[in-house]
Amino acid sequence: MQVSEAKWTDTEKKIAQTVFDQAYKREIEALLKQVREQAGTIVEVGDLWQLHDFLSAKRHEVEGKYDYQYPALLFVFAGLVKEGWLHLNELEGLSQDKLSKVAALARM
Amino acid sequence: MQVSEAKWTDTEKKIAQTVFDQAYKREIEALLKQVREQAGTIVEVGDLWQLHDFLSAKRHEVEGKYDYQYPALLFVFAGLVKEGWLHLNELEGLSQDKLSKVAALARM
Repeated sequence: MQVSEAKWTDTEKKIAQTVFDQAYKREIEALLKQVREQAGTIVEVGDLWQLHDFLSAKRHEVEGKYDYQYPALLFVFAGLVKEGWLHLNELEGLSQDKLSKVAALARM
Repeated sequence: MQVSEAKWTDTEKKIAQTVFDQAYKREIEALLKQVREQAGTIVEVGDLWQLHDFLSAKRHEVEGKYDYQYPALLFVFAGLVKEGWLHLNELEGLSQDKLSKVAALARM
């Protein structure tokens, strides 16, 4: 399956950027909520370092994942679908070929 | 000023350990409070990474500072006095020589 060499039309680029931003917003909102809740339950130093470890891991994960580069975009979308930050039908407007690839990758 | 070669009596060691633990407890309590408050004000991703940076710095600082080794203890106590986690009079029971050294180092 050729995934990284897909060509993107201007319309597709616009859709991709919108959908990408939307998924990022959702994941960050959920993370903000989770951290506010977790921080509210902190009672000892171990909880503090646990929150620190959690933030270190999430920051690394989020900064690595939300890298907007066309050659990797179908993989990124597939990952976001798999994790629930994105629904396949939100990608409507991309070519059938791209949609099939994202769907297939998301099932892997 | 010879500081790191001071000899510690058993009584002094007991006082030192108690005072050390007390200062640690105070600093951690203050940190817990600060993090709970800061976490409550988180509204965007920048706040989240700011909290992460803050925790990284504090963890490094606290773990480095609260290292209970007799050769370094007068320096540690002086630092804690300077930062307000310890009062000089709580060290009462240590030799006059040690008290003077802590007081002098705390003024530096």
